[in-house]
Amino acid sequence: MKRLSLVALAAAAIVITLPAAAQFAKPEEAVKYRQSALTVMGTHFGRVGAMVQGKAPFDAAAAQADIEIATMMSTLPFTAFGPGTDVGKTGAKRVIWTERAKFDAAAKKMQDEMVKLNAAAKTGNLEQIKTAFGPTAAACKACHDDFRNR
Amino acid sequence: MKRLSLVALAAAAIVITLPAAAQFAKPEEAVKYRQSALTVMGTHFGRVGAMVQGKAPFDAAAAQADIEIATMMSTLPFTAFGPGTDVGKTGAKRVIWTERAKFDAAAKKMQDEMVKLNAAAKTGNLEQIKTAFGPTAAACKACHDDFRNR
Repeated sequence: MKRLSLVALAAAAIVITLPAAAQFAKPEEAVKYRQSALTVMGTHFGRVGAMVQGKAPFDAAAAQADIEIATMMSTLPFTAFGPGTDVGKTGAKRVIWTERAKFDAAAKKMQDEMVKLNAAAKTGNLEQIKTAFGPTAAACKACHDDFRNR
Repeated sequence: MKRLSLVALAAAAIVITLPAAAQFAKPEEAVKYRQSALTVMGTHFGRVGAMVQGKAPFDAAAAQADIEIATMMSTLPFTAFGPGTDVGKTGAKRVIWTERAKFDAAAKKMQDEMVKLNAAAKTGNLEQIKTAFGPTAAACKACHDDFRNR
């Protein structure tokens, strides 16, 4: 089987602030960016979901790499929901912009659960990963239920 | 100005191998994934490009975070160009699958230049970033010229 190498990254405790404005030249670029970040996050999260659900064999190293990537990706999309980005082909509900504090809290909940899942993945223990996976998936779903059109 | 926090990640020397096959349930998912990863990479790379070209003010911390993300993203797309993924709305040229070694070499060239740019970004020195940015941008362009339809 052909194998390709993947360089996994480790989370560092560097927290910086970036201006949310002036990050995208056009609102459509913000939409495409956030959808892209969520697609990459969802792909890697989903691979671990398949392991958790027994649909794919458990591979501790792969799970760790996938959640590492998902954790990094979880930090990216939310700068791209700025004012004026309710445009084009978006599944984002308008309530994101009218009830921003609720949306931000839902995003933070997901990020926090993902960080816990990332710690669990580093143990290499499937049971610990299962325990942390559930609340993370629930946080994804809760945000989708409230803020994404079907 | 509203500011959102971004957790930046540091590259670690963890290199693992993942099977290229069995990563995507459908070829269309591979196409969407690789386009998404390249969109995120291009967005962050482009922000540094604007600084390098004097179109945006130089912000050393932002540049470092952007290139850190771009470097991580540069490792992701190429697992998703597997056999049978020349489908749907793709700008990928068929030559990717007929001259794979050349494509892989072009991808690796970009990744290698991005790692150098990442090291330059960590110095916080704009001149060093400019020096490393050029070859990285050239590697992006070379791969697009040869392997992407306009």
